Amino acid sequence: MRENNIKKIWAEGGTVFNGWLASPGSVTAEVMARQDWDSVTIDLQHGLVDYSDAVTMLQAISQTDTVPLARCPWNEPVMVQKLLDAGAYGIICPMINSREECEQFIGACRYFPDGYRSVGPIRAGMYAGPDYITHANTTVLAIAMIETSQAVDKLDEILTTPGLDGIFVGPSDLSVSLGTAAGFDPEFPKVMAAIEHIAERCQHHGIPAGIHTGSVEYALRMQKLGYQFITLLSELRMIQWASGNAIKAFRAGAPSPDAP
Amino acid sequence: MRENNIKKIWAEGGTVFNGWLASPGSVTAEVMARQDWDSVTIDLQHGLVDYSDAVTMLQAISQTDTVPLARCPWNEPVMVQKLLDAGAYGIICPMINSREECEQFIGACRYFPDGYRSVGPIRAGMYAGPDYITHANTTVLAIAMIETSQAVDKLDEILTTPGLDGIFVGPSDLSVSLGTAAGFDPEFPKVMAAIEHIAERCQHHGIPAGIHTGSVEYALRMQKLGYQFITLLSELRMIQWASGNAIKAFRAGAPSPDAP
Amino acid sequence: MRENNIKKIWAEGGTVFNGWLASPGSVTAEVMARQDWDSVTIDLQHGLVDYSDAVTMLQAISQTDTVPLARCPWNEPVMVQKLLDAGAYGIICPMINSREECEQFIGACRYFPDGYRSVGPIRAGMYAGPDYITHANTTVLAIAMIETSQAVDKLDEILTTPGLDGIFVGPSDLSVSLGTAAGFDPEFPKVMAAIEHIAERCQHHGIPAGIHTGSVEYALRMQKLGYQFITLLSELRMIQWASGNAIKAFRAGAPSPDAP
Amino acid sequence: MRENNIKKIWAEGGTVFNGWLASPGSVTAEVMARQDWDSVTIDLQHGLVDYSDAVTMLQAISQTDTVPLARCPWNEPVMVQKLLDAGAYGIICPMINSREECEQFIGACRYFPDGYRSVGPIRAGMYAGPDYITHANTTVLAIAMIETSQAVDKLDEILTTPGLDGIFVGPSDLSVSLGTAAGFDPEFPKVMAAIEHIAERCQHHGIPAGIHTGSVEYALRMQKLGYQFITLLSELRMIQWASGNAIKAFRAGAPSPDAP
Amino acid sequence: MRENNIKKIWAEGGTVFNGWLASPGSVTAEVMARQDWDSVTIDLQHGLVDYSDAVTMLQAISQTDTVPLARCPWNEPVMVQKLLDAGAYGIICPMINSREECEQFIGACRYFPDGYRSVGPIRAGMYAGPDYITHANTTVLAIAMIETSQAVDKLDEILTTPGLDGIFVGPSDLSVSLGTAAGFDPEFPKVMAAIEHIAERCQHHGIPAGIHTGSVEYALRMQKLGYQFITLLSELRMIQWASGNAIKAFRAGAPSPDAP
Amino acid sequence: MRENNIKKIWAEGGTVFNGWLASPGSVTAEVMARQDWDSVTIDLQHGLVDYSDAVTMLQAISQTDTVPLARCPWNEPVMVQKLLDAGAYGIICPMINSREECEQFIGACRYFPDGYRSVGPIRAGMYAGPDYITHANTTVLAIAMIETSQAVDKLDEILTTPGLDGIFVGPSDLSVSLGTAAGFDPEFPKVMAAIEHIAERCQHHGIPAGIHTGSVEYALRMQKLGYQFITLLSELRMIQWASGNAIKAFRAGAPSPDAP
Repeated sequence: MRENNIKKIWAEGGTVFNGWLASPGSVTAEVMARQDWDSVTIDLQHGLVDYSDAVTMLQAISQTDTVPLARCPWNEPVMVQKLLDAGAYGIICPMINSREECEQFIGACRYFPDGYRSVGPIRAGMYAGPDYITHANTTVLAIAMIETSQAVDKLDEILTTPGLDGIFVGPSDLSVSLGTAAGFDPEFPKVMAAIEHIAERCQHHGIPAGIHTGSVEYALRMQKLGYQFITLLSELRMIQWASGNAIKAFRAGAPSPDAP
Repeated sequence: MRENNIKKIWAEGGTVFNGWLASPGSVTAEVMARQDWDSVTIDLQHGLVDYSDAVTMLQAISQTDTVPLARCPWNEPVMVQKLLDAGAYGIICPMINSREECEQFIGACRYFPDGYRSVGPIRAGMYAGPDYITHANTTVLAIAMIETSQAVDKLDEILTTPGLDGIFVGPSDLSVSLGTAAGFDPEFPKVMAAIEHIAERCQHHGIPAGIHTGSVEYALRMQKLGYQFITLLSELRMIQWASGNAIKAFRAGAPSPDAP
Repeated sequence: MRENNIKKIWAEGGTVFNGWLASPGSVTAEVMARQDWDSVTIDLQHGLVDYSDAVTMLQAISQTDTVPLARCPWNEPVMVQKLLDAGAYGIICPMINSREECEQFIGACRYFPDGYRSVGPIRAGMYAGPDYITHANTTVLAIAMIETSQAVDKLDEILTTPGLDGIFVGPSDLSVSLGTAAGFDPEFPKVMAAIEHIAERCQHHGIPAGIHTGSVEYALRMQKLGYQFITLLSELRMIQWASGNAIKAFRAGAPSPDAP
Repeated sequence: MRENNIKKIWAEGGTVFNGWLASPGSVTAEVMARQDWDSVTIDLQHGLVDYSDAVTMLQAISQTDTVPLARCPWNEPVMVQKLLDAGAYGIICPMINSREECEQFIGACRYFPDGYRSVGPIRAGMYAGPDYITHANTTVLAIAMIETSQAVDKLDEILTTPGLDGIFVGPSDLSVSLGTAAGFDPEFPKVMAAIEHIAERCQHHGIPAGIHTGSVEYALRMQKLGYQFITLLSELRMIQWASGNAIKAFRAGAPSPDAP
Repeated sequence: MRENNIKKIWAEGGTVFNGWLASPGSVTAEVMARQDWDSVTIDLQHGLVDYSDAVTMLQAISQTDTVPLARCPWNEPVMVQKLLDAGAYGIICPMINSREECEQFIGACRYFPDGYRSVGPIRAGMYAGPDYITHANTTVLAIAMIETSQAVDKLDEILTTPGLDGIFVGPSDLSVSLGTAAGFDPEFPKVMAAIEHIAERCQHHGIPAGIHTGSVEYALRMQKLGYQFITLLSELRMIQWASGNAIKAFRAGAPSPDAP
Repeated sequence: MRENNIKKIWAEGGTVFNGWLASPGSVTAEVMARQDWDSVTIDLQHGLVDYSDAVTMLQAISQTDTVPLARCPWNEPVMVQKLLDAGAYGIICPMINSREECEQFIGACRYFPDGYRSVGPIRAGMYAGPDYITHANTTVLAIAMIETSQAVDKLDEILTTPGLDGIFVGPSDLSVSLGTAAGFDPEFPKVMAAIEHIAERCQHHGIPAGIHTGSVEYALRMQKLGYQFITLLSELRMIQWASGNAIKAFRAGAPSPDAP
């Protein structure tokens, strides 16, 4: 079975730098996958992406060595399984707030006896190899999102769920849940305290921690805190950032370092 | 009929700053249209975009005041007319190398007696208003691409074609046609000479000139040469530029001004 | 944040006249949105519409001032949230039969602390404005369908669920649930009694009531009963009605007032 | 090979009443095909329909006995052949202005030795039967549009082109070409004179004449003039007409015979 | 209402031979439906098919007398109902492990008072006829998958669930659940024992049994065991089998009976 | 630039065994590409495939080493160029009947000065490498179809067109053009004579010859005649052949060597 390069990077103590796809489109997916991201995640939760889009996007990404991941829309077994069958090499699941929810999520990612995933990896077997069923349980990543105060309260019970491969912090939801404003790269003390606490507990339990960031500067700070799976914005945000800067520079009549 | 804002900008002596869509997708089209571009062009020639994609992209752009344009795949009447019926407010046509070719192109953009466009502006009438047919010939833009040495040779006869609204330089094809390498922002003396010559003849004939550029710096130089319709890269190039810079910065361990 | 025009009409004591989209297609969606409906609802329950269709349909509707709504396929949080993130300004949820079900539905429509909706309004923020997250809980409509005898029995507990913006009667399901035949515009005494009872309880609790009707005549009767959100047929039914009448008239050899 | 019911109706001296599809969508296509139209035409010229849409629409129509036709976007052999291979049982070709253009069009509809259509009726053979290739030349309809003053001038040479099955008048283009305003159901004397002249010459040459109309009243007048293939509006116009009338009636507070 | 031919075959003691669609595509669906299968099942669980694909596939199949079925992705009411509304004449539901799960599944297939399916059979009514609602509960098939050891343990309680029309064995999941390897046509004694036990209990309770097989040879063995609904591979497996054999034969330089 | 493996096989005197895709679908494309075909051709002429389908199919094929080819719908520059920009590594063009037509086709495949292809290989550059423009003219294949008696008459002038990489015989059209019946694997003496003549002239001019066959037996005969690019049926024909045989075998009650 094709190796999961994320596991290899983590085993070597490295940090995964992950791209994010928020819009449907196999061409934008290919463009992102051909950058030097370690992995690219198709977002079926907040991203305007549906399953039929995701299939062609997974095919597009699979032309490259970039690891294809997907965020499922909710902690429900249907889409987790459909995305894995379509060849996602890991699932990020939103809103895991308890051990029970985490078990339900992980169960959908694992064949018997580790879970209740149904057998039929039609495209996954083509992507990964004919021995997919044998090795999938230990290759495919199950990553739970920690993004509410309730999840922070239940952190240890979540982090010790058998089969959990990693967690991913959603800073906007976490901030809102802690009573502050939504947005990338929060600096609110209690949000930052939670982010640091999560990093610390993950290291304690040997679970790689991830987070979604809005800037390289914040990404590097998170890396220093121990985060090993760091997402930066999305393809749509890249368009907005570069276009917005370029238009401003052009209208101002002077090139700018933050624009092409 | 809804005014064509490009005509207004040109009438005031201003420069249109135009975004470019090279991939199919109504979401990326909406994101681009919501930046401060004066217009956005859907590229059906080299862009990986087909007509059915273009319809939803035109709808997405039409939520905003950004003027929706399209580049047709070739100088053929079918797609010119289909794109206009779908609500494009102007067509950029590749590879116009003679007066005859220019007349054929413009004819497809104009109702009788100015051309041979067939009547049936199904979505254009919804976008522009019920008097579309009456005013379309003087509102919708016909922009011819000048991108070969042959076209440069025939420039005056092309620029004086009745009904021509503007021209658009394709620097890659022009460079190749002049025996140099393809690419944005050419500095080869003979290419630059052609670019300057085109600007000069356009001003002489009162035809706004446009060009596709790869940087704000070059765009500003073109503006100074008199170019009034300036395109910068594309949404895919924005993703590549911003992502590539960010990945490099992250891996280098230091933020960079050219990355988010 | 862009105002929700439905709330304004209701605040002024007016009636919302709502169009209905039962088939996928951004062009039919645009045509409907450009009629004088106050709002148009994309039906993802019985309509043959999926989420990826809904995205382009929401973009098409958003070219106009017609308020874009969607009926989610079932009382499940996934699609409620995905449709809101895609820019629906209200959700109609089928088969709300108890307070608990109503709370679950409303929770999916509201950010913390009013509910459990996850933060990430990618297109909604583009449509509504950058302060979407701040005002969404009081702008986006949560409308519960009352369409079973059980729901009628639990009406008061449903109508008093915090955050409920309105209800919508499904006459076919309600009729079947009461033991009579399915169909628009029921006249069965016990169905009519239920419809009147619902109107009365809604007025008592200050909750706008809505209903799906099959004719202007019935729609006007419902308005007189106090219904303030009235849907008429669907785009498919309009095609059937007008085409069917026209074909009959043509074959009969005489124009007819019910045909074009 | 499956019979072409239009030929049968014409052979019996009857009139074909034809529905029109201007938007993409297999569901609206099915709804139209299930009305009592004799045939339904998918419009790839002014309709917002592309070939990939047309394939599923042809499949949807083929569930019924309604004859599936298509209007190709222009007099070019590519789409004529692709639509026939996909199972269209006849092609309406816009803008036939001379014998030569008519021959080119008909040639694309016919296998050797009657034309230059390439062999490979992948779906047509499934729809029509395994002997499709043998009988296609005499079963599939080639219908030329007469919609310019030039075509009226060349009428006899067009009508006598070998293999021509019928003609179809485009009243908007014809009106514009004759110097009057576009629109359905023209009453301008010179347009009406042309319409009558076309009917007369078609009868003389034994070629069934068709026309696109905007009302049953006008359709019946055309039938009396001898037109045997009459199209009424389109599915989009049906939505606009019925919805528009219903909204007006509802807002006026009284049912109306021209609304459901 | 259109008869369900599967019920007729079963009533006559016959065996249904069922084709399987694992990939999206209305053309492959039409090709399969035009073979001599009694029914064809669109697989939305492991198949790479989404609901919007399924709609056009159901339309494609409905051109023929082949019965259109669908496997829903999971035991959840949303997709069961959406597929039935789209015209599926039966649903195969994965992973039914208890009476309670079976009741939930069947309830989604049945209108009140037999279940909780909501009324609105938009395409089903077009396919089946205007009396669809009256007869759907006794025409549309509810088929539960038996594919875990738990289901085998609870077999009698599942088989006696009111409204159950048939069961379908998933040999891969059943094998894995019983501790052996996944794959078609299992020969493991305990899997074979379960398969025989299921056949025996189904005959006892008068419930037709089905199974997914990988070869005609195994299919015939299953028929002898009493299985009356037998699926063979899928359209993708047919491509793999025939292509793979042909390539081998060509490279070996000799035709082979297992290749075209 | 990524090597074109077909050229390598031909240079070594080998035969390319080519799969054929006649229906839209990135999943069937991936399945075909993962068999041991040397190349796979997406058919945009008779295949029910459009450009937007082709883009995802090219991405799907590009996951493998199988060379992606496409048949353009007609000898027109638009689709030739769009397919090359999308990453096709060769174009098969139908109906090349003269030197002039062959030159027009080849010109669309080649950048200046060898042709008139416009520069902008958006996906081709991603697939093939950043030096695509430099090497495309000598890497991308231009293959002309010989399928009429006229083409056979003009064979030498066609085969000596500069830049021609190969030819491909369409046996159905050739048979019809020679006055015999359409179909794969013709045995008519005059068709066979033409096929042998084409092979002989191709060898004389050093141009690899190809042909579309319907069986391994015929394919091997063609290989012996010197054909070096041999296509076998299509994915749809594989489905029909294997399914048809399996159904017959099952209904006959006995396995068969020509069925799975």
